Amino acid sequence: MKVILKDKPSRGLTCKNIPIPEPGEHEVLLRVKASGICGTDVHIYDWDDWSSKRIHPPVVIGHELVGYVVELGKSVRHIDIGQRVSVEGHIACGHCEFCRTGQAHICRDVEIIGVDRNGCFAEYLCIDAGNVWPVPDAIPDHIAALFDPVGNAMHTVMAEPVAGKSVLITGAGAVGLFAAAIAKSSGASKIIMIEPNAYKRPKAREAGADSVFAPEDENLEDIVLSNTGGLGPQIFLEMSGHQDAITTGLHLLRNGGCACVLGIPPKPLTLDWANDIVFKGITIKAINGRRMYDTWFQTQNFMLRNQESINRLITHRLPFDHYESGFDLLHNGNAVKIVLEMK
Amino acid sequence: MKVILKDKPSRGLTCKNIPIPEPGEHEVLLRVKASGICGTDVHIYDWDDWSSKRIHPPVVIGHELVGYVVELGKSVRHIDIGQRVSVEGHIACGHCEFCRTGQAHICRDVEIIGVDRNGCFAEYLCIDAGNVWPVPDAIPDHIAALFDPVGNAMHTVMAEPVAGKSVLITGAGAVGLFAAAIAKSSGASKIIMIEPNAYKRPKAREAGADSVFAPEDENLEDIVLSNTGGLGPQIFLEMSGHQDAITTGLHLLRNGGCACVLGIPPKPLTLDWANDIVFKGITIKAINGRRMYDTWFQTQNFMLRNQESINRLITHRLPFDHYESGFDLLHNGNAVKIVLEMK
Amino acid sequence: MKVILKDKPSRGLTCKNIPIPEPGEHEVLLRVKASGICGTDVHIYDWDDWSSKRIHPPVVIGHELVGYVVELGKSVRHIDIGQRVSVEGHIACGHCEFCRTGQAHICRDVEIIGVDRNGCFAEYLCIDAGNVWPVPDAIPDHIAALFDPVGNAMHTVMAEPVAGKSVLITGAGAVGLFAAAIAKSSGASKIIMIEPNAYKRPKAREAGADSVFAPEDENLEDIVLSNTGGLGPQIFLEMSGHQDAITTGLHLLRNGGCACVLGIPPKPLTLDWANDIVFKGITIKAINGRRMYDTWFQTQNFMLRNQESINRLITHRLPFDHYESGFDLLHNGNAVKIVLEMK
Amino acid sequence: MKVILKDKPSRGLTCKNIPIPEPGEHEVLLRVKASGICGTDVHIYDWDDWSSKRIHPPVVIGHELVGYVVELGKSVRHIDIGQRVSVEGHIACGHCEFCRTGQAHICRDVEIIGVDRNGCFAEYLCIDAGNVWPVPDAIPDHIAALFDPVGNAMHTVMAEPVAGKSVLITGAGAVGLFAAAIAKSSGASKIIMIEPNAYKRPKAREAGADSVFAPEDENLEDIVLSNTGGLGPQIFLEMSGHQDAITTGLHLLRNGGCACVLGIPPKPLTLDWANDIVFKGITIKAINGRRMYDTWFQTQNFMLRNQESINRLITHRLPFDHYESGFDLLHNGNAVKIVLEMK
Repeated sequence: MKVILKDKPSRGLTCKNIPIPEPGEHEVLLRVKASGICGTDVHIYDWDDWSSKRIHPPVVIGHELVGYVVELGKSVRHIDIGQRVSVEGHIACGHCEFCRTGQAHICRDVEIIGVDRNGCFAEYLCIDAGNVWPVPDAIPDHIAALFDPVGNAMHTVMAEPVAGKSVLITGAGAVGLFAAAIAKSSGASKIIMIEPNAYKRPKAREAGADSVFAPEDENLEDIVLSNTGGLGPQIFLEMSGHQDAITTGLHLLRNGGCACVLGIPPKPLTLDWANDIVFKGITIKAINGRRMYDTWFQTQNFMLRNQESINRLITHRLPFDHYESGFDLLHNGNAVKIVLEMK
Repeated sequence: MKVILKDKPSRGLTCKNIPIPEPGEHEVLLRVKASGICGTDVHIYDWDDWSSKRIHPPVVIGHELVGYVVELGKSVRHIDIGQRVSVEGHIACGHCEFCRTGQAHICRDVEIIGVDRNGCFAEYLCIDAGNVWPVPDAIPDHIAALFDPVGNAMHTVMAEPVAGKSVLITGAGAVGLFAAAIAKSSGASKIIMIEPNAYKRPKAREAGADSVFAPEDENLEDIVLSNTGGLGPQIFLEMSGHQDAITTGLHLLRNGGCACVLGIPPKPLTLDWANDIVFKGITIKAINGRRMYDTWFQTQNFMLRNQESINRLITHRLPFDHYESGFDLLHNGNAVKIVLEMK
Repeated sequence: MKVILKDKPSRGLTCKNIPIPEPGEHEVLLRVKASGICGTDVHIYDWDDWSSKRIHPPVVIGHELVGYVVELGKSVRHIDIGQRVSVEGHIACGHCEFCRTGQAHICRDVEIIGVDRNGCFAEYLCIDAGNVWPVPDAIPDHIAALFDPVGNAMHTVMAEPVAGKSVLITGAGAVGLFAAAIAKSSGASKIIMIEPNAYKRPKAREAGADSVFAPEDENLEDIVLSNTGGLGPQIFLEMSGHQDAITTGLHLLRNGGCACVLGIPPKPLTLDWANDIVFKGITIKAINGRRMYDTWFQTQNFMLRNQESINRLITHRLPFDHYESGFDLLHNGNAVKIVLEMK
Repeated sequence: MKVILKDKPSRGLTCKNIPIPEPGEHEVLLRVKASGICGTDVHIYDWDDWSSKRIHPPVVIGHELVGYVVELGKSVRHIDIGQRVSVEGHIACGHCEFCRTGQAHICRDVEIIGVDRNGCFAEYLCIDAGNVWPVPDAIPDHIAALFDPVGNAMHTVMAEPVAGKSVLITGAGAVGLFAAAIAKSSGASKIIMIEPNAYKRPKAREAGADSVFAPEDENLEDIVLSNTGGLGPQIFLEMSGHQDAITTGLHLLRNGGCACVLGIPPKPLTLDWANDIVFKGITIKAINGRRMYDTWFQTQNFMLRNQESINRLITHRLPFDHYESGFDLLHNGNAVKIVLEMK
């Protein structure tokens, strides 16, 4: 089968053929139909610090997908050949305290497809039956391929109710923009986004933001305050992982407010812990992955009623073979979400 | 009346006589019976960075007290002459969004007695009638003087239920030790404390800690992990404000755990935001003051049933005039809580 | 001044003139501009069981209003002559445990305007300064008069987050319909309403319900189940106070779901506690009044962005003098919300 | 193997020999060491209404146990022969929305051992590997046999934090008494119990209750109020399933309080929904089974630190063969928890 492979410990990816895997006892074999390219995939392409430590080539990358079931491991029940499914790419251990208490998303022995084992930029994928998510017919393939990143956004937005509240979002990448769309549909009374990339700022408005700023805008903090009754936003969704965004967001956050933080900074941060956190009496909720499978039910409900708002953020649908164009677009900051489609 | 005054912008305090104040329309005049010395008072004594910016001498310091009502402003109702009371020393504005939604403890226009206006190291104190807390007879004066600091500890411990959970506390000052006593009585399954001061570590055991460590103890992190099933504590109560304590505590905190943070670092911190916060999916709850007046009801219930555990942490009861001895003891780290008693 | 009065202990109301009241020390005098008629007012008109026990004539009725400040009591601060305001009609004691812990809405010594003391169906109203809510200019009078009933709906819907969840609402009176509009704008994934009155059912669709049923519809329970994945709705908002509605709603509610109940049954109920409550592991949250003043901030944010959805439910705007027509319409079930307007 | 069997659809139980079962692919075979007798077992013995509808004889009864693993199904991993274990007796389907969102305890397709399939009053038991709970050595057999009922109590008490709050418990059966012990160790400020059985009332005090009343005590409601500051208890734990207990408890519960209800009434109830629920703004949390496996971790932590408080409530330890004596004692109300021990 054709796969996109991190073949060796250096920049770039390789397209080549490897044998179709065979499903283990509790696994299913999927024919992949469509895959999203994630920022993580770009990091692996670039062979940055993080990926050079975490990835052991050769590995097939990719973890956002939709496909259909073509073969069942011999102990698999409750799944049928031919079913169309998406996949939770975090393979949790299933036996630890976290897995036994509904917190598999923070299992310490998790393996991630496309990172720690072969992923979905491939014609076929073997995956644990328990990680398979049947997709309703009403959700088309190119949207169903995005359960993973829309789920990240959903997990973040659902961590603290936004209905009737003002929300600041830092970072208008795909997940930040999905978060804006979800916050909008969940009744946020005002959505403000901060994003340095000029291509993405108009997308933020399309996603539902009431106002969008660049970090370098003059008097940015004053403007955000005047947009939030002088008190700052009630909710801060941190989707960028940048020091400045985190500093600005915590500084602006209203006393007693809640910061839901998903972005991953590449190195340690400096914070004014006393003034920006303790004295303000805020709460910070850190978000990792998707709740299994609460987030999936929520994401499915969202996809069933808000396809257009997701569609708008899929800036490119490319044939699988044109993956290099996809990575080019993302490197240049000229895309939000790109979906690779199999013939 | 005799008062302890920050008289001028330099180190030290002065005892002198000033006129007895008169209660405003909505205020009461109290005869002070006993006062606790707080770490904040020590900072003011020392004229450190923070106090030199915040304090405008001359000001009577002190904010932990019990006393009795001797005069009522003309619009005061529901309070009687002779009533024994403690006092919430944070005077909130009463009109802002925070004050109108049960969050007066994070009002941005708060004034604090003994900091922004005259405090309770004095024979008499004028205070808003709404900030007065009637004290049941069963709580003796030297304990009733401590509603404020025990309330800080209560607010922190109540922020996340501890029953049946393992708790790490960094900092065995008075508030940290009160927190240990409260966590113990609230059913924590294990309490571990970290404290650099050798005088205070045995107090931690008396307060209810199962094990107590110094920051410099060899293999400290491994030992804490082995005491918490290899996963780290489920709750982290940060009562020190030290960079190292915050780093260690967040690093040890179990995935999905909750950090309740009260300690005030004197300057910005460096944190491994990605590994110690985001990936672990933890929650951080910042604590300021006491909830008005939820925390006071909780503190009163605790004082009614756990006097001995508070008593044990009052290492010294001194006559009001001997306040310099009290500050000496605190400067040398040879005291936990000191109460100054009026004749 | 002209007022609508419950003059004697029998059916009906009287319009007559009484002296303009004078504001007490902490009160303001308002010129009333517009008032909503509430179901409670209809009960008082009818002199039903409840009102004959609770009401002591003569009393001016009415508790939903907007007006402007014309006089200040001598201790009033922070309010200006001429300010346009709505009013929280529950006068809580201010001193009990509930009032001191942000729960004034369940104060046991509450007095309600238009019930326990003179209300707002009058040219002027005296009210405690602390119960006054300044209204932004962008909210017109006939909508601002409805902070009270929209607030009841808001309190109910906000009691449990609805974003992405299926919601069943029993009772399409004004408050039930406001609840539908709020649930819709807060991201409910599906809204189902049950209402016996044929005039009100189309209003339910206008308010945002996806489907609306009559209690007598054949196979009602099966249809609701098939509309909610076979599992029943995740949220049940009980706005009717009818035995059958409560029984049906609890029976349909999904295992682990949440019922937020506001409707007041006139007499005791019979429930299948074991099967409809305990075994299903549900939560029931009882709702009374509006949170002071969290609900008011939420309601204001909603009014600022959703005027049309409220407007649609104000079926009649009548001159104050035509109040009898208003009560006629409500008695016949041919109105949702009626606003009486002063010249 | 020897088993205690509901052999036919009538009163009583039979001890006889049946073949040792063989573990399925995902099951383990346990040698049972000790079993608790539950109230449910007494209902089945009596062949009451409920059991005559639910039970299909012949079935081995019993669902509280400790034992050790003697054989593994061929797909079982992570469990070893010889391990000492307790068992979650609710076999959830594993595939429904509840099971996939950490709510397996309310799975609608649950099967319960000793009710819907053979249970643990037997020398051997086959059980799904996922339902096995390894027991630390420090917990002796006769206590480890009680994970199920102590877990019911734990689930109820943990549903709403009790630290610093007053708690009313109706029903001093084994689970009610375990709840008292857990509430005590979790920092409840006051525990009041109501129980009609004179044998059990002194046990309530031993378990940690501050005061214990009979339902027929004169002025019961006044006394409870005067014990709770005139406002009633803040938490109500309903462990009896009796109409009168539920009525009394809801009536006494403080405004804004929380009722956690586990008891199962045999038939529908009558409630003053308006006055005892809606106007008071209370919350009702219905409790079913044990959270899988949050409750188990909590229960284990409790057992490790509070063995004596459980021990005190195990009034009888009998040889397995003497089970009829156990049922006699329970029928006569002269026992709390009885453990049957295998040789």
